[in-house]
Amino acid sequence: MSAAQDLVLDPALSAHQSISEWLTGLIAEQRLPQGFKLPAERRFSQALGVSRMTLRQALESLQQDGSILRVVGAKGGSFVAEARVPVDISNLMGLSKQLLKSVHSASSIVISAQTISAEAAVAEALQLPVGEEVHRIHRLRYAGATPVVIEESFLPAGLFPRFLELDLDGSIYELMSSRYSLAPYSSVEELNPVIISEADAKLMEIKADSAVLGVKRTALAKNGQPVEYSRDLIRTDRLKIVVSGRVGDAT
Amino acid sequence: MSAAQDLVLDPALSAHQSISEWLTGLIAEQRLPQGFKLPAERRFSQALGVSRMTLRQALESLQQDGSILRVVGAKGGSFVAEARVPVDISNLMGLSKQLLKSVHSASSIVISAQTISAEAAVAEALQLPVGEEVHRIHRLRYAGATPVVIEESFLPAGLFPRFLELDLDGSIYELMSSRYSLAPYSSVEELNPVIISEADAKLMEIKADSAVLGVKRTALAKNGQPVEYSRDLIRTDRLKIVVSGRVGDAT
Repeated sequence: MSAAQDLVLDPALSAHQSISEWLTGLIAEQRLPQGFKLPAERRFSQALGVSRMTLRQALESLQQDGSILRVVGAKGGSFVAEARVPVDISNLMGLSKQLLKSVHSASSIVISAQTISAEAAVAEALQLPVGEEVHRIHRLRYAGATPVVIEESFLPAGLFPRFLELDLDGSIYELMSSRYSLAPYSSVEELNPVIISEADAKLMEIKADSAVLGVKRTALAKNGQPVEYSRDLIRTDRLKIVVSGRVGDAT
Repeated sequence: MSAAQDLVLDPALSAHQSISEWLTGLIAEQRLPQGFKLPAERRFSQALGVSRMTLRQALESLQQDGSILRVVGAKGGSFVAEARVPVDISNLMGLSKQLLKSVHSASSIVISAQTISAEAAVAEALQLPVGEEVHRIHRLRYAGATPVVIEESFLPAGLFPRFLELDLDGSIYELMSSRYSLAPYSSVEELNPVIISEADAKLMEIKADSAVLGVKRTALAKNGQPVEYSRDLIRTDRLKIVVSGRVGDAT
């Protein structure tokens, strides 16, 4: 990388912001292609004339928005990441279909599926009495070989008898629609940044204490009946989560 | 709090999940009212028959979703928080108006406002050449006395001449519409969980390393012209960020 002379420290920005802007630009223009390994931190910070701390701050923010991957170990380093997979969470197509549209191979594995008594938060979202039976389907979703979402879905057992006997690897929304004629029609999602737990970090193959996007969704059928409540954790370093809106949508 | 006997450890949940579910229920039913101080950790964990570590995990998750506030110091402790202010980010009404609808008093202070050269990310979002002039408006928004959002808005200077001479404490969208007839009509927002920087943590009066919701928004006028790009950091312990969607919205 002999492009260090391109870096101009913008006085309106802090040094680490200038560096991440500059690298973001080089990546966007594909002057640094996918898989490119950045110089080692010590050498790179010297070449740029900044402290190692400043360089690290820049690399951390690039990692947070998915521009680079940082790999530890002997063969480790900072690598330009492949582009993130776009997912529109205001689109009710369902995650399965959206991932399949964008990536070569999307899949999921079922961690567990059981019928249990609804705890308070689940009961409230599904407008059921606490303790009522719900199906809980806990899945890990992949984009290619990379785990990207941990999904915990709850369905009212009364509305979806024998649901857990179906093949739960694919689209749950598709099954709700084709087998029970109860397709999700509208949804409300609550968004929270979440520091991931150690167990979930292992499942997702990311560092413990990473920040992920938590989405709690209540999906309603056309008649207003709640048909699904889910709590998802999303790796935003691999998925680019967007929401699109129009003035006409305002309620 | 003599309600410890109500806590039933659900075998399907970990102990800390059971505790946070239980406390969430008590708060929702207002059996623990706003401002209620929870027992000290040592005493509370003993009363519940769990380790202090387990109790702390439960309290951390309640803090993350805004149910409790944890205050340090001699008069500190864990307090039941007031309900979060709902904000629908798929609604283009603008944050100013949404906050004003929900809270007694919403206000903002302008940290800085200048006309600068567009950096790469800003230029790309606004479809301008890099280096073109943009207005950058950096604000801190309050709900009541609590800082809740740091906003960094960029407007193409060519479309909004003398914009910075206006009163920037209120709704920018309102000014764009009434003074320039360039109201935002549609938007695309990208969502990322962000670990807040030390400087921003001070502005927001929260702990450094807290997770906040980062929203990058590009707003377009009815003719498709980009009119604003913004990068917001949102305290989700005080604002409840929701997205509403309908199947009809799918694009």
